[in-house]
Amino acid sequence: MPELRKDPVFDRWVIIATERANRPNQFDARSDLGQGAPCPFCSGNESMTPPEILARRPAGLAPNAPGWTLRVVPNKFPALVLSGELDRRVDTIYDSMEGVGAHEVIIETPRHESDVGALSDAELQDVIAAYQERIRALKRDFRLRSILIFKNQGAEAGATIDHAHSQIVAMPLAPPVIAAELRAGMRHYQNTGRCIYCDILAHELKVRARLVAATEKFLVACPFASRFPFETWIVPRRHAACFEDATSSEAAALAAAMKDTLGRMRRALGAPAFNYVIHSMPAGEAEPRSYHWHIEIMPKLTQAGGFEWGSGCFINPVAPEAAASTLRGQKDR
Amino acid sequence: MPELRKDPVFDRWVIIATERANRPNQFDARSDLGQGAPCPFCSGNESMTPPEILARRPAGLAPNAPGWTLRVVPNKFPALVLSGELDRRVDTIYDSMEGVGAHEVIIETPRHESDVGALSDAELQDVIAAYQERIRALKRDFRLRSILIFKNQGAEAGATIDHAHSQIVAMPLAPPVIAAELRAGMRHYQNTGRCIYCDILAHELKVRARLVAATEKFLVACPFASRFPFETWIVPRRHAACFEDATSSEAAALAAAMKDTLGRMRRALGAPAFNYVIHSMPAGEAEPRSYHWHIEIMPKLTQAGGFEWGSGCFINPVAPEAAASTLRGQKDR
Repeated sequence: MPELRKDPVFDRWVIIATERANRPNQFDARSDLGQGAPCPFCSGNESMTPPEILARRPAGLAPNAPGWTLRVVPNKFPALVLSGELDRRVDTIYDSMEGVGAHEVIIETPRHESDVGALSDAELQDVIAAYQERIRALKRDFRLRSILIFKNQGAEAGATIDHAHSQIVAMPLAPPVIAAELRAGMRHYQNTGRCIYCDILAHELKVRARLVAATEKFLVACPFASRFPFETWIVPRRHAACFEDATSSEAAALAAAMKDTLGRMRRALGAPAFNYVIHSMPAGEAEPRSYHWHIEIMPKLTQAGGFEWGSGCFINPVAPEAAASTLRGQKDR
Repeated sequence: MPELRKDPVFDRWVIIATERANRPNQFDARSDLGQGAPCPFCSGNESMTPPEILARRPAGLAPNAPGWTLRVVPNKFPALVLSGELDRRVDTIYDSMEGVGAHEVIIETPRHESDVGALSDAELQDVIAAYQERIRALKRDFRLRSILIFKNQGAEAGATIDHAHSQIVAMPLAPPVIAAELRAGMRHYQNTGRCIYCDILAHELKVRARLVAATEKFLVACPFASRFPFETWIVPRRHAACFEDATSSEAAALAAAMKDTLGRMRRALGAPAFNYVIHSMPAGEAEPRSYHWHIEIMPKLTQAGGFEWGSGCFINPVAPEAAASTLRGQKDR
């Protein structure tokens, strides 16, 4: 059973998940990602994963067998598990609790593609629909507060399996990053009656220097205080707190914006490893006008080092205005 | 001129330092760290660095020429620079300021050693003395608040030059990590009259499960909520807020504890890349009884990915009790 431990100094929870030390290539991120070994995410190898939670396949076909176009399965080496109690344990000075939550994998295609950019528009739309469906399902579990969806593509970005996939981690608490966003959003809303992200959108649309693209439904921009070179956010122009509430036409426009943005990065930067994270309002929040979902894409071009871990600040050698200009200059597909 | 930018949502400053994009191997951390090119940190290549700020060499020898055993030089690609004004600029929604501060490099040996573990005891003591001397000097500049000393060893840990060195970044603000430590330490001190780190030390000495070593002057332990596998802290047993106030006998004991700990990691983990960071009380703090300096060592065995960047939480596949037991079991040199 994994364990959630709170740092006695920081408001920072750490998941101690010792079964994950058995993952492929653990402690050797620069290996060939298990090349040679059969890929557990490929069509035909369904028995190598736990039974599926959700799948997209033609009607009449059997589960956990070929014919699917997308699968969601529990992570074989979960950071958190749904069994267990939420009881907090406190010894004299330390807080901890059982590692209750969920850790799922979205297998995005039956083909052995390593780049999400190789997915068709329809496949990427199915991925987004699966994200939404799993968030809605997990939010029905009253124990879970935040549901984080992210992708690690490439070993340098933390992937241990090559085949295109993303991950869901549902936690019984709002993690520090989301909690800080909620606090700042609420403070701004109480002060001004406006959403802080809507204000940022309006400002960036006016200034334009950090815009990568502006579609009918989304703004793509490098944030003013980008932590990483070529960090790029995709933000819906319509105010909305929850990613899972995006309409199907918004989801289609999002798939197009993601594909366009990742294509620009691939052409400008030579297919870098990257992470993306969906920031969305957790369960149990009262004021949807104070939060605004968005996606943060972070190409892995630099290594976080002692400075970043020791300060919580970042040194970014590429101004976001220069990054945006470079990405803007990439021809459309 | 670098620029400090504050995120509009987070209390997080980012240093936009575009000249650093000219560093060797920038954007290619897995290259051979410039092998083949002459090493700017080797004896004989002094002209490849800016003129030295501090050096250890026999009396009578000329500066910026061979004969030294340790040099401190300005970083050739500084994240922050000492010229400039501290004025904050606020446009409609964003905070920024000129990148005022200092960024220095401690070249730890004239020999082309890549591992700080290859330094002699005397060399490592000189490194620690140089850290202390630079902190004292930089604290005299009233503009500087926090002085962060860290080492990145190995490309995976963010090093772009192989030759053993550490770095100093002095900033005009207390970065989020140090600010959070100060807040938590002050809260605990006001509630209990005690230092939170002293309480942790006492607890760990009693429990022993996370102890790696306990010397007369230092405790070496894996913290309860370790973010990373084999994360290990070195904490002075005597309460002290400021690293630079350590006596010379404490500094000698620290050098021995660092050498012993890094040797255990090297033998247990096969010479991993790692970061260490010295956490010490910034300038301008009123209550030294509420903070406790220490060193955090973080071997680079896993990659931070979407989960870590998106949540601020960490998934650690090795329990600190298991890590401590493994490190304890390593024979002394």
